[in-house]
Amino acid sequence: MTTVAAYAAPAAKAPLERTTIERRPVGATDVRIDITFAGICHSDIHQAEEGWGESIFPMVPGHEIAGVVAEVGSGVTRYRVGDRVGVGCFVDSCRACEYCDQGLEQYCVEGMTVTYNGLDRRGEPTHGGYSTGIVVDERYVLRIPDSLPLDAAAPLLCAGITSYSPLRRAEVGPGSKVAVLGLGGLGHMGVKLAHAMGAEVTVLSQSLRKRDDGLRMGADHYYATSDPATFENLAGTFDVILSTVSVALDFDRYLALLKPGGVLANVGAPDDPVSLNLFSLMTGGRSLVGSMIGGIPETQEMLDFCAEHGIGAEIEVIRAEEVNEAWKRVVASDVRYRFVIDTATI
Amino acid sequence: MTTVAAYAAPAAKAPLERTTIERRPVGATDVRIDITFAGICHSDIHQAEEGWGESIFPMVPGHEIAGVVAEVGSGVTRYRVGDRVGVGCFVDSCRACEYCDQGLEQYCVEGMTVTYNGLDRRGEPTHGGYSTGIVVDERYVLRIPDSLPLDAAAPLLCAGITSYSPLRRAEVGPGSKVAVLGLGGLGHMGVKLAHAMGAEVTVLSQSLRKRDDGLRMGADHYYATSDPATFENLAGTFDVILSTVSVALDFDRYLALLKPGGVLANVGAPDDPVSLNLFSLMTGGRSLVGSMIGGIPETQEMLDFCAEHGIGAEIEVIRAEEVNEAWKRVVASDVRYRFVIDTATI
Repeated sequence: MTTVAAYAAPAAKAPLERTTIERRPVGATDVRIDITFAGICHSDIHQAEEGWGESIFPMVPGHEIAGVVAEVGSGVTRYRVGDRVGVGCFVDSCRACEYCDQGLEQYCVEGMTVTYNGLDRRGEPTHGGYSTGIVVDERYVLRIPDSLPLDAAAPLLCAGITSYSPLRRAEVGPGSKVAVLGLGGLGHMGVKLAHAMGAEVTVLSQSLRKRDDGLRMGADHYYATSDPATFENLAGTFDVILSTVSVALDFDRYLALLKPGGVLANVGAPDDPVSLNLFSLMTGGRSLVGSMIGGIPETQEMLDFCAEHGIGAEIEVIRAEEVNEAWKRVVASDVRYRFVIDTATI
Repeated sequence: MTTVAAYAAPAAKAPLERTTIERRPVGATDVRIDITFAGICHSDIHQAEEGWGESIFPMVPGHEIAGVVAEVGSGVTRYRVGDRVGVGCFVDSCRACEYCDQGLEQYCVEGMTVTYNGLDRRGEPTHGGYSTGIVVDERYVLRIPDSLPLDAAAPLLCAGITSYSPLRRAEVGPGSKVAVLGLGGLGHMGVKLAHAMGAEVTVLSQSLRKRDDGLRMGADHYYATSDPATFENLAGTFDVILSTVSVALDFDRYLALLKPGGVLANVGAPDDPVSLNLFSLMTGGRSLVGSMIGGIPETQEMLDFCAEHGIGAEIEVIRAEEVNEAWKRVVASDVRYRFVIDTATI
């Protein structure tokens, strides 16, 4: 066992506090990672506040983990001490079902073992990246290419893959017209990734407040959804819309912005159901596609793609003791564009 | 000009009456068709009752047309007098936009010219298949293979292609598990087509009343959606669900029947919006896809596929004077599975 420092929520809605937790002994196929940076994802807050159902406490959140290999088990073949690595939203799965076999571990029929707020295969609670170390089977560890700074790479493990996977599935490439709806943690990655894939990228945001940022990240156009003219002028324009917005939108309005055959890929997670007129899909043969993170092979592909194109998240690195304040700012959408905890400060 | 006999609705919600209409002179690229059979589609009734908005009267409905070429224009290259042909839901389009170029005329940027209840390119009202003849540009005429009876082929021009196109787009084939939701005019074609594509086919119908028919058409399984056990037992089962139901379903329940990555293809047209929990799509990366008929090349492909596999619609052939009664039975879902008017009786 290894004792590591961590920030944990002792109970639902309680502020995070410094504590220590035990990590399991390094098994044959395990990698022990010294965590250097951990991104803050809105879902950390949802889960600590039990917004999506009952949670396990104390909770050490964090599923955007970057660090360096400190120790490897006797059977580890892919990593060596000193390697730069990452861990995302899950740390295990059944490894035997058709989805695990295909590298789609997020769809494991037994359910993936989530990085925190879950129970591992032995029934022990999992704890995430707001800590100085973690032990993970090498199958669920990603390699962070040398050219990517670890701090800017951490958010790629959730925000990056969440945006990358639906863009790939929709076959975005040169000639594609892509709209990214919302310019937050997910949206800003969507802009950078779609631009790097060769698409013509439009940001659709409530206001023009972040316009300069969006254009700098690679957007070709930027429109405010508060302006009704946006919907008139852009009708039938896009091959793909990536919606990263977490409120229940008027999807019919957005589907009308798609070309025939276009895809609205949704990665936002509103609590309320949406209302949908099926004619919005039928006329034009349009699709509404859900997406949630990605499997291990695709996550590695995304990291390699980001390295090739020099893409990292735009981040504000914070000290651990600032985490509760940072959470408040995430809820207020007051972050450009992802907080990352320097875990050396825990 | 040619005068042809027809059945027309003189006004909204008025019974159809026998009348005569004029068809345009045969232009250089036109084909004049002696109609032999015309299918009755529920959308004929919707439009005659102005259920989808204002309609044009008098209205000669019918967009499931089968017949024989009676005359060809001087520039016609693809058809000769005596050829067995069909006409579907549209008879013209701009012929110049990117969608027309791709054979996706149903998405024409200027709008397709619908076979009836529309205005043609010269601004004249179009009239459909409840008549003894029609003149159509050869580009919008389909060839009905010799092995397909004209009466059973007529419904393929709408019900057939409407079911075929989303199954193809979802890449249904051997190994696919397909559920067809609703066993009516569209659904029964969906069962036959998915079976012929090699899929394992399940019918999900309100009751087991039509079970024997469904199994005879090629379904491997048949379950009642009125039984809650259906939803428990079939969770995560299907690659594709083809929904042909025209009421606003609880889509979340049906999306849960899909495998990860599965597709719910909707061709039913409920008047009311549906409510959707986006988590139903996100968990499992599922899709909700709309579809509406198909382009000319795909419609021809569908007819050839049906000929290869010996597929026709299951029909009740009626005399023209029975059409008002038949419409009532369509509204009551009392048809197995498509009415076809013998236009010789007009």
